[in-house]
Amino acid sequence: MNQAAMAIEENDPFMSSDFVAEMLKQLRALDTYDTYEGWSEEKIIDPLILTKERKREIPIVGDPDETTVARIKSYYNAIASLIEKKCGLMAVPFVNLTHEGFGRALVMVGKLIVVDKTLRDVHRWGFPTLEALCEQSEKQIDKALELIEQYKEVAES
Amino acid sequence: MNQAAMAIEENDPFMSSDFVAEMLKQLRALDTYDTYEGWSEEKIIDPLILTKERKREIPIVGDPDETTVARIKSYYNAIASLIEKKCGLMAVPFVNLTHEGFGRALVMVGKLIVVDKTLRDVHRWGFPTLEALCEQSEKQIDKALELIEQYKEVAES
Repeated sequence: MNQAAMAIEENDPFMSSDFVAEMLKQLRALDTYDTYEGWSEEKIIDPLILTKERKREIPIVGDPDETTVARIKSYYNAIASLIEKKCGLMAVPFVNLTHEGFGRALVMVGKLIVVDKTLRDVHRWGFPTLEALCEQSEKQIDKALELIEQYKEVAES
Repeated sequence: MNQAAMAIEENDPFMSSDFVAEMLKQLRALDTYDTYEGWSEEKIIDPLILTKERKREIPIVGDPDETTVARIKSYYNAIASLIEKKCGLMAVPFVNLTHEGFGRALVMVGKLIVVDKTLRDVHRWGFPTLEALCEQSEKQIDKALELIEQYKEVAES
């Protein structure tokens, strides 16, 4: 990926959203080798943004590398963590990927599956813009909270 | 494992149970190298039985080999398949293991988690007797069916 040009501009208002704050926390939590030491927040989030130009540079078929897998895990950790904060019940993320980059991501609250996403071509995982990242994630969280409200007994069991 | 002495006797009545029939089907489905070709049904099921003597021979700490992991996947495939047959709704097994042999096995029906089992020391996975294998599995299936009955709407969603 071209590291010279960032896809996130300085002072992008979405950088101060709840979701990005949580995402930064989760990415740092899985950064066991301190790769992010000294990086700006924009630079840490930047690889999640897959603009059309960046996507074109990635082959259609490919295996996901460890960093991409760690990013996807961080992403569902962030989703689960925000669901947990907002509903007060424990939310558990569960990401299952094959070596070929296919799989499924779940978030469970009690016996209820509140997020269920099929993953494909994980080596090309990302969001077209920072705004899309925030909006899609918030939508998933809101949908999860609605499900919890609807099936409270299952979520609490 | 000592292959000379089998833990299952010939004509063991549990060999003709529904669970063993399904388990054989699932084990064969994952037997991509035709290892089981020419084996008796008892011989195929036998490694699932971990008698006290056999357990003593396995080190306490160890990594699970591919065969053990395939067996565990077959096991939850069998559980899911029988749940599906009995309730008429699709049941999806989901086994997540680390290389160190810890993990979790789930079976989902719709948005409902009907089996949720924490796995530990997977290299020592097995059942003390064939009877225990059948009874524990049937108990899990019955519990799953009760949950589906209780939270039908979630299971159907």
